[in-house]
Amino acid sequence: MKKIINDPSNFVEESIDGLIKSHPDIYSIAKDNNRVVTRAKKSSNKVGIVTGGGSGHLPVFTGYIGKGFLDACAVGSVFASPSVDQMFSAIKNANNGNGVLCIIGNYGGDVMNFEMACEMAEAEGIKTKKVIVADDIASAKISEKEKRRGIAGMIFVFKIAGAIAETGVSLDDVFKTATEANNNIRTLGVAMSPCILPEAGKPTFQIGDDEIEIGMGIHGEPGIKREKLKPANDLVDDLYKRIIEDSGIKSNDHIAIMINSLGATPLEELYIISKRVNENLLNSKIKNIKTFVGRYATSMEMAGMSITTLKLNDNLKKYLFENSECPFWNN
Amino acid sequence: MKKIINDPSNFVEESIDGLIKSHPDIYSIAKDNNRVVTRAKKSSNKVGIVTGGGSGHLPVFTGYIGKGFLDACAVGSVFASPSVDQMFSAIKNANNGNGVLCIIGNYGGDVMNFEMACEMAEAEGIKTKKVIVADDIASAKISEKEKRRGIAGMIFVFKIAGAIAETGVSLDDVFKTATEANNNIRTLGVAMSPCILPEAGKPTFQIGDDEIEIGMGIHGEPGIKREKLKPANDLVDDLYKRIIEDSGIKSNDHIAIMINSLGATPLEELYIISKRVNENLLNSKIKNIKTFVGRYATSMEMAGMSITTLKLNDNLKKYLFENSECPFWNN
Repeated sequence: MKKIINDPSNFVEESIDGLIKSHPDIYSIAKDNNRVVTRAKKSSNKVGIVTGGGSGHLPVFTGYIGKGFLDACAVGSVFASPSVDQMFSAIKNANNGNGVLCIIGNYGGDVMNFEMACEMAEAEGIKTKKVIVADDIASAKISEKEKRRGIAGMIFVFKIAGAIAETGVSLDDVFKTATEANNNIRTLGVAMSPCILPEAGKPTFQIGDDEIEIGMGIHGEPGIKREKLKPANDLVDDLYKRIIEDSGIKSNDHIAIMINSLGATPLEELYIISKRVNENLLNSKIKNIKTFVGRYATSMEMAGMSITTLKLNDNLKKYLFENSECPFWNN
Repeated sequence: MKKIINDPSNFVEESIDGLIKSHPDIYSIAKDNNRVVTRAKKSSNKVGIVTGGGSGHLPVFTGYIGKGFLDACAVGSVFASPSVDQMFSAIKNANNGNGVLCIIGNYGGDVMNFEMACEMAEAEGIKTKKVIVADDIASAKISEKEKRRGIAGMIFVFKIAGAIAETGVSLDDVFKTATEANNNIRTLGVAMSPCILPEAGKPTFQIGDDEIEIGMGIHGEPGIKREKLKPANDLVDDLYKRIIEDSGIKSNDHIAIMINSLGATPLEELYIISKRVNENLLNSKIKNIKTFVGRYATSMEMAGMSITTLKLNDNLKKYLFENSECPFWNN
């Protein structure tokens, strides 16, 4: 895969700078840290919402800053955790006296560094809470749900937490609803081709020309099985069955779904996938309120996709559909 | 590139069906033709806006149906023109007694078939006008502008024509503003890797591992030069200089820009490109009002990108920023 880049060592700084120059009404760089992105206009009288993680997943993480979404984001190098200092800066920048909720993908470095950053913030009198997103059903059994990785379902948590925070409720209330969203998401994906890390210049993993890997992580973490490429409907049916069983979603439940490309897989294929998922939901008498189709959580030019379900109740539904201002979310 | 598809011969039907099942509030299939997509709720008291073209370019063409955008679209096979019958059906479905504007990418089959479809519509008493989009500066000299192909700039024409049509003005007035938008767009792109046609199963063209082609069309039409991959800034500077010279845009002009991925090229790279374009505009004292970054006109999993400029006046600015309802446009 040929990359349109300059010096690979400036890849992250240049892409962040481009994000801000492209959408100056939405994003800004923090004054105290050039790897922290904040809202262009700082919010007031609300709980701050922060995330952070490695680069190479746009729009995740920093793209989801905006009114009704995040307040600040710590930006790591490609596929690498941000530092404690970056996270601490993001928390301080997001705080306006009402405390900060950190929404963290469940990756060792991200969680550990956010824990330390939260301690530092608490020591300065900033109240913090953490929601650790764990939606990838391939990465651990349901009985060890807290070990699961966070992938595309994270965006539903960003959206819902961001929306309730705008209403001015307390940190405890934002935490409660964000936790509810986190508990109600399930994702399973399939990887078909690797991406190339700009600095390393080589693929993240090897896979045969006719092979796919079910449940592979967005950094190439091992999945649950490697198998031959099969027709879209067979693949979808396999993923669908696993997701619905794991989620406990049953007939008459209301849900939203996200069909997410890891990067190279085009919209035409996502819609072929979405067709089958929606047909399966109809057969299961599960009420799909809204289908999101696109590139929400990627690994640069990786081919593959994931399917996410979000089980809805009236509370989650209300905040999922609130207006927001973010280039990567269509209200 | 591995594809998540079923029978390649059903690729188009299944992806359209998935589009409609995913966004049933926006899209519907025409009652009289299964290759024509219409709005879910037919509009009234306005000029109808129609387009049509080959599949494999989502969101182009049919994705841009929606309030403030298109009314109907004729959907061809992958990289193939729709039939006259499909276009005629799209025109009839879009018409509510106020005439229909057809916005057509400048490709031989599309233009010829739309001409015949418009004649058939006129014979049934439906007033029609055509705007033939020709923004690709690589495909013909400025003195033969009418020979240029239509690429990503087309979306600006869809948006502006769609927005003015909603105000209820006459077909002549919609045509005039759409023509103004068409005259004011310039696009130049670069292709880096081919895509694979589902039915043919082979790449659309061959290109060396270290080569790129400036100005190559979105179906692999020959560009203006093939050269070695170079740093993003050098590539952008080359494209920028050609676009600005061709467009006649000068300091103090107001413009909008679109940085469009052909498919596989990820957001990180688009933002590195956008950074440089925005810096060049600042140096040229050209006022960029809005930057659009994303996948607006693709060739499935092709790698590469295009840069589009739209020279704005008060009229075009007003309609570019009107609200609309379309999954692929963020107001």
